[in-house]
Amino acid sequence: MYGLIGKFIAQDGKRDDLISALVTASSALPGCLSYIVARDPSDANTLWVTEVWDSQESHVASLKLPAVQAVIAEVRPWIGGIERVATTEPIGGHGLVGARRLQ
Amino acid sequence: MYGLIGKFIAQDGKRDDLISALVTASSALPGCLSYIVARDPSDANTLWVTEVWDSQESHVASLKLPAVQAVIAEVRPWIGGIERVATTEPIGGHGLVGARRLQ
Repeated sequence: MYGLIGKFIAQDGKRDDLISALVTASSALPGCLSYIVARDPSDANTLWVTEVWDSQESHVASLKLPAVQAVIAEVRPWIGGIERVATTEPIGGHGLVGARRLQ
Repeated sequence: MYGLIGKFIAQDGKRDDLISALVTASSALPGCLSYIVARDPSDANTLWVTEVWDSQESHVASLKLPAVQAVIAEVRPWIGGIERVATTEPIGGHGLVGARRLQ
């Protein structure tokens, strides 16, 4: 599996729009096992996105989907910055939806 | 919802044991919507734990469960450090298993 932990900084007043767009976009992506969007209660512009994919290839492929490309174009003006906090190798746990196996 | 992003440092040689124990322990906890354990590929002792709970109260209550207390006692010697990278307010996404509603 392939995981990402990202810290996003939204433009002022755009965090909720950004969260809503990301939540909607992540509802059914091939190979996506978990995609959770969260506010940071300590900063009004910060949100966290934690992702698990069955493979890095699935993640890369998702970025090329027309629906995802459309969302990226929509939300880009709302994003002030993205920090990739970690790239991970998820092993298991609870909430890996669609996981075919734990590896 | 209530979320945690934690970076754990295992004692030398103990990361896989720690991951295995955490994965097993997280399989069925009341109010737990997601609990994913991942290796950090850049450091042999680092692992990441990302959690979503229906409330902070459920998280606190889980720590008092006898089964969880037993796991905590088992794994404590294997942990060199824990950094709470973020406490979050998850909004939604994919992979929130057992979620009664998105809030």
